[in-house]
Amino acid sequence: MTELTGKIVLGPHRYGKAENRVVRIVRDTARHEIRDLNVSSCLRGDFDAAHLEGDQATVLPTDSQKQTIFSYAKEKGVTFIEDYGLALARHFVDDVDPVESARIEIEEYVWERVVVDGAGHDHTWTRKGSEVRTVAITVQGSGSDRKEWVIGGLKDLVVLKSTGSEFSGFLTDPYTVLEPTHDRVMATSLVAQWRFTASDADWDVTYDGIRATMLEVFATLQSKALQQTLFEMGRAVLEKYPFIAEIRLSAPNKHHFAYDLARFGVDNDNEVFHADDRPYGLIQASVLREDAPDAGIAWEPYTGAV
Amino acid sequence: MTELTGKIVLGPHRYGKAENRVVRIVRDTARHEIRDLNVSSCLRGDFDAAHLEGDQATVLPTDSQKQTIFSYAKEKGVTFIEDYGLALARHFVDDVDPVESARIEIEEYVWERVVVDGAGHDHTWTRKGSEVRTVAITVQGSGSDRKEWVIGGLKDLVVLKSTGSEFSGFLTDPYTVLEPTHDRVMATSLVAQWRFTASDADWDVTYDGIRATMLEVFATLQSKALQQTLFEMGRAVLEKYPFIAEIRLSAPNKHHFAYDLARFGVDNDNEVFHADDRPYGLIQASVLREDAPDAGIAWEPYTGAV
Amino acid sequence: MTELTGKIVLGPHRYGKAENRVVRIVRDTARHEIRDLNVSSCLRGDFDAAHLEGDQATVLPTDSQKQTIFSYAKEKGVTFIEDYGLALARHFVDDVDPVESARIEIEEYVWERVVVDGAGHDHTWTRKGSEVRTVAITVQGSGSDRKEWVIGGLKDLVVLKSTGSEFSGFLTDPYTVLEPTHDRVMATSLVAQWRFTASDADWDVTYDGIRATMLEVFATLQSKALQQTLFEMGRAVLEKYPFIAEIRLSAPNKHHFAYDLARFGVDNDNEVFHADDRPYGLIQASVLREDAPDAGIAWEPYTGAV
Amino acid sequence: MTELTGKIVLGPHRYGKAENRVVRIVRDTARHEIRDLNVSSCLRGDFDAAHLEGDQATVLPTDSQKQTIFSYAKEKGVTFIEDYGLALARHFVDDVDPVESARIEIEEYVWERVVVDGAGHDHTWTRKGSEVRTVAITVQGSGSDRKEWVIGGLKDLVVLKSTGSEFSGFLTDPYTVLEPTHDRVMATSLVAQWRFTASDADWDVTYDGIRATMLEVFATLQSKALQQTLFEMGRAVLEKYPFIAEIRLSAPNKHHFAYDLARFGVDNDNEVFHADDRPYGLIQASVLREDAPDAGIAWEPYTGAV
Repeated sequence: MTELTGKIVLGPHRYGKAENRVVRIVRDTARHEIRDLNVSSCLRGDFDAAHLEGDQATVLPTDSQKQTIFSYAKEKGVTFIEDYGLALARHFVDDVDPVESARIEIEEYVWERVVVDGAGHDHTWTRKGSEVRTVAITVQGSGSDRKEWVIGGLKDLVVLKSTGSEFSGFLTDPYTVLEPTHDRVMATSLVAQWRFTASDADWDVTYDGIRATMLEVFATLQSKALQQTLFEMGRAVLEKYPFIAEIRLSAPNKHHFAYDLARFGVDNDNEVFHADDRPYGLIQASVLREDAPDAGIAWEPYTGAV
Repeated sequence: MTELTGKIVLGPHRYGKAENRVVRIVRDTARHEIRDLNVSSCLRGDFDAAHLEGDQATVLPTDSQKQTIFSYAKEKGVTFIEDYGLALARHFVDDVDPVESARIEIEEYVWERVVVDGAGHDHTWTRKGSEVRTVAITVQGSGSDRKEWVIGGLKDLVVLKSTGSEFSGFLTDPYTVLEPTHDRVMATSLVAQWRFTASDADWDVTYDGIRATMLEVFATLQSKALQQTLFEMGRAVLEKYPFIAEIRLSAPNKHHFAYDLARFGVDNDNEVFHADDRPYGLIQASVLREDAPDAGIAWEPYTGAV
Repeated sequence: MTELTGKIVLGPHRYGKAENRVVRIVRDTARHEIRDLNVSSCLRGDFDAAHLEGDQATVLPTDSQKQTIFSYAKEKGVTFIEDYGLALARHFVDDVDPVESARIEIEEYVWERVVVDGAGHDHTWTRKGSEVRTVAITVQGSGSDRKEWVIGGLKDLVVLKSTGSEFSGFLTDPYTVLEPTHDRVMATSLVAQWRFTASDADWDVTYDGIRATMLEVFATLQSKALQQTLFEMGRAVLEKYPFIAEIRLSAPNKHHFAYDLARFGVDNDNEVFHADDRPYGLIQASVLREDAPDAGIAWEPYTGAV
Repeated sequence: MTELTGKIVLGPHRYGKAENRVVRIVRDTARHEIRDLNVSSCLRGDFDAAHLEGDQATVLPTDSQKQTIFSYAKEKGVTFIEDYGLALARHFVDDVDPVESARIEIEEYVWERVVVDGAGHDHTWTRKGSEVRTVAITVQGSGSDRKEWVIGGLKDLVVLKSTGSEFSGFLTDPYTVLEPTHDRVMATSLVAQWRFTASDADWDVTYDGIRATMLEVFATLQSKALQQTLFEMGRAVLEKYPFIAEIRLSAPNKHHFAYDLARFGVDNDNEVFHADDRPYGLIQASVLREDAPDAGIAWEPYTGAV
């Protein structure tokens, strides 16, 4: 047991206002639009005195951050959540003196119009899916040192294929009792995050395209393992979108076990499954371009939600 | 304080296996079908000795109920979850001697096909929505005393309208500080359950129709209160489906408060809202036909999930 | 399929403000007290016009109910949550004209003092346990028709015994593969609710006593089934507290499966278990005095949380 | 928008079995012991072929990892969860050839004995608190390159003080409407993780001591901000335990707003609060020794739970 004698010091620190539930309605015409957001702000900078001496002179209250988040939803609008997040992050870095970098994390809950008489209704929606769109914006420094990173993503995208998945030829050890299989259900609740090379893009079109690309690979690839599927999903995204520098994927293997019905004289040829909760395999992989620009602090999380 | 001296006796009791996560894949052709269910069984009957003396002679293990639930997913199939639930409930009442009534509660999670090259994929789906379809089947007695009740429903249907809702002219008391409003956001996470008059119906078509009817009323009715909206939703369902005896609705009023931006010199004409979590109004109402048949024990809950 | 032609009418209905998160600090001396509550109000009465015509003239806003709930935490205090709930329910019935009955549901989160220098600190606490104390108060009618019911309870009391539990001699059918056992882990997350015969009692002492009595029976009874354990827990409570009319118990059988380690040449004599999530057995039973007074509408739930 | 042309390559990747719910009963005498764990394994190493080619030859199935986790609960025991985690991590690195590093994350749920006749019962417990003890073990490399890191911690420790907290003198901007306060409730749900300098310690005694130290500082420090409280909690831990290299703290500021009762002619001198859910301030800080040894990959998370 090593005993340390060095000075005790303040290490990395940050603070902000988490989970502001902003709902923005655009009602310039009778056909309203809705964006439903969960916004968190995170500031880094010279806040040492607050920790060391309880001196708040450099600390902008988290309440002020909240007010700004709501006010910017009108002042700047949220036509694109990435632009709204960039505006907030730039404001905190540029206008609040002690702030050296700001991170804005946004979750977006997607809605779809209720159908009335065969058409989408002007001002009524239902929540669409459990899936959440995410964005994490980081703005750091000023002048020629200014850096900006945009990470788009999604989480809780639950996807399942009922065939076209196998798992065999694996390493075995004395604890291995698993049988290889050449036909199984593969299901996951996908978390994906992709880093843009710049702070501008056709945000919504790109989001839809990346989501569709990943799902298409998941569906059509004959999978030899979830690892392979994840890599190919990531590769397809990077091939299609050269302005994406890297993509990170985290995928629980939501096990569906074929139920043993032979005991009751009943055949079960991959027709009846038990969807188990825990434990689950958990596969995490990233795919990147060799010439990807430096990520800096872009991947340092805050709330854990994005 | 009244002190009782009467004999201490066993009151109503029941037991079963809750939350069997059954996933049924139909793969007779290359185009697979999926039904993803959470099934609970509940038995009532002569189980007094188990409670009073620890004698299990009349108790069918909950494990046996689980096996039956999974096996019936193949033996009987789940083309319609209502028919699958009826088959299970009838089996427990008819084939397990001490059972006097059986209740089968099912939650169904809906999936939609992944789109590949413009068409729904044969064997890959994503989870659709947070919304859950429910059914509660009760079968009681045998022979001429046989009774059956089917309650269909849904829960977690999150719906919002950004205008067309008001609330004014209400009763006031010394604690009333609320201002009347003639334009507000109205949102809820709807729970609805409707009781059929018989054990046969065009189950899936009826489900889709009831859901669409309720959403259409929610969207198009100029609402003077959530109470009014609920009643009109229920009335529309009963008018359209004469084989529905009653409908019960439970609706949290998910408050969206217009955010005060005037403090910052910013207009906010119902454009930026704070979606609050708690507290929430909670409105519950039922709508029924005066000649509705007796509900018996149909509404006695088990897991609380249905 | 029976088609109904009867008139469509409004059935039972009620409304209120759910989940008001009231924290009450008593700070009359340096030694503070805390009560941390989640309070819901529910009103029944003549609110038909609100549903049928959108006329709010008899509807006290849920916002006003909220204000009252918070104000009564000071005006009446919360020395005992039962008395606080009774005061609220009586107020709504007596002072708000259209109200015929009121139900107040309270969850209480228990805190314990942080220990500093061997003693409980004056004004700092940690949340104690996942367990929640509950109360459901119903007040109905006025004058000689006045009725009051108090239901105390708890939920999420997770309790486990590592021996002293068996399950054998049960009914078998063709789907029975379960082996009898004479030594198993028994665990549950208990929900219990007990109805008092009157609106006064030594509330906190009774709560502690009932909780301790149930746990003592759970611990010391050699259990032949969870059914037997629940009945004996209830019986012990009723024997000890003659002013309790009935008790209702709901207990998931949280399965702990002895893990098969023999495959690896390792003995496992009930030492290593897999704590499974779903499915679970779910046992519900009530125990009552034959001379229990009428329960009226006391057991009609509102939020589902109590 | 920068378009990249570099080669698309596999980045960092890892996999394992998450959330194995291991319950270990020690029953060598009539007085049983219980340890209730949620164990996740995570392997890093040469698994490129699995991703790139779907070749599993170097992939030990997550199922085998699960079997090992359960078997080691008996083979190695879990007298101390840190030693159990170290045994598992060393095994995967030493005995499974392609594995270069292994991470074991453990959550422990604490139980306390049921009191019967004034004494703790031999084999019956209730779950104690919402609080979870955590440990994250990382073992990397072999021979002279072997490195080991142990991170202890806790999460969901909900703590509140009803006075002795203020917040004033803060930076203001045009969005600042918050009033300074010299007496407020301060509450948080603490997450803390501390890194040991070595792989041996008096694990349970140290855990209890760190927890007590942090709570004592929280209780007794007159707080000028949550930032200050966190730093002082961390400093106290490092001062008392020289074998702790650093501590990281994450603390949501669970806002308790004094309720405005003046509108009803009722005084509220910090007696009645609304415990709000969202948004919340979120403060994160670390405290370390200047001579802390290198952390390597110790802080790279896996499940996000630890």
